[in-house]
Amino acid sequence: MNASVFIATSLDGFIAREDGAIDWLPTPDGTDEDYGYQAFMDTVDVLVMGRHTYETVLSFGAWPYETPVVVLSHRSIEQPEEQDASVERMAGPPREILQRLADRGLTHAYVDGGRTIQRFLADGLIQRLTITVVPVLLGEGLPLFGPLPHDVRLQLLDTRSFPNGLVQHRYAVVAE
Amino acid sequence: MNASVFIATSLDGFIAREDGAIDWLPTPDGTDEDYGYQAFMDTVDVLVMGRHTYETVLSFGAWPYETPVVVLSHRSIEQPEEQDASVERMAGPPREILQRLADRGLTHAYVDGGRTIQRFLADGLIQRLTITVVPVLLGEGLPLFGPLPHDVRLQLLDTRSFPNGLVQHRYAVVAE
Repeated sequence: MNASVFIATSLDGFIAREDGAIDWLPTPDGTDEDYGYQAFMDTVDVLVMGRHTYETVLSFGAWPYETPVVVLSHRSIEQPEEQDASVERMAGPPREILQRLADRGLTHAYVDGGRTIQRFLADGLIQRLTITVVPVLLGEGLPLFGPLPHDVRLQLLDTRSFPNGLVQHRYAVVAE
Repeated sequence: MNASVFIATSLDGFIAREDGAIDWLPTPDGTDEDYGYQAFMDTVDVLVMGRHTYETVLSFGAWPYETPVVVLSHRSIEQPEEQDASVERMAGPPREILQRLADRGLTHAYVDGGRTIQRFLADGLIQRLTITVVPVLLGEGLPLFGPLPHDVRLQLLDTRSFPNGLVQHRYAVVAE
């Protein structure tokens, strides 16, 4: 089971303001530039996110995912209004969650949300990180990264920049 | 008076471990690659750093700077052993420090050290940021960035990557 991160951060490493706001992300510019999102999603067969990220997604209105979503939560969650949305709640240690998904024949999880990413990284379960850096400093907010039991060495796979100043890096986590 | 930052960080935004260690920076690889450091230093006529960074530099042994150094400190500082090292202590608000240096005909300050960079950024005194991202997550350490009174928008000037996986971005701070 592979697990990847695909996320945008401010240059100072925040994925959202303290209140979850992402108003600082670039607004669609009329082009169909999606920063590689759809190409990435095409490789993913399940999303894994925390309850907080899930509730943020729900608050946006229309359910955005065709891919099945697993929400990590110890209490029950609201379901999306869309009948065809596939949302399932799970609870447990990250390694166990991925094992349960692998047992179903799933092969590539998109791990999303700050705390969830941090937990999976700390447990050595992430293989790929695609980080898109937005040219702004927020000063405070919800951080992408957090404490780790030890250094995590990365290998830069590629990097590219966009006309609006976004820079995207793809890293592989170097196995311990 | 222009002021620039030129610094390396881990992907999770640390410039040193908690104890100041920079063992995670790439070791010289026998090439003369300096990641643009000398070209940058050639544009600088004064370094401004905090006492903590200064003491770290002193601990390295041989004094590395030909450029005059201003150390921000409210108490007296040790001088380098090297007779030709130019080190001067100053204290005061960042804007006042830069004004004093400008009054001497200096034109471009290299602002270094986490807390000092944060103070100068918060006061809107930095025009250029060159950030070199090392492909490692440390989990904890001394952060490059800190709280700000408001968002700081940046313009990406250029980006380049190196064979060892370092990625360097140059940003201009967008005037408020």
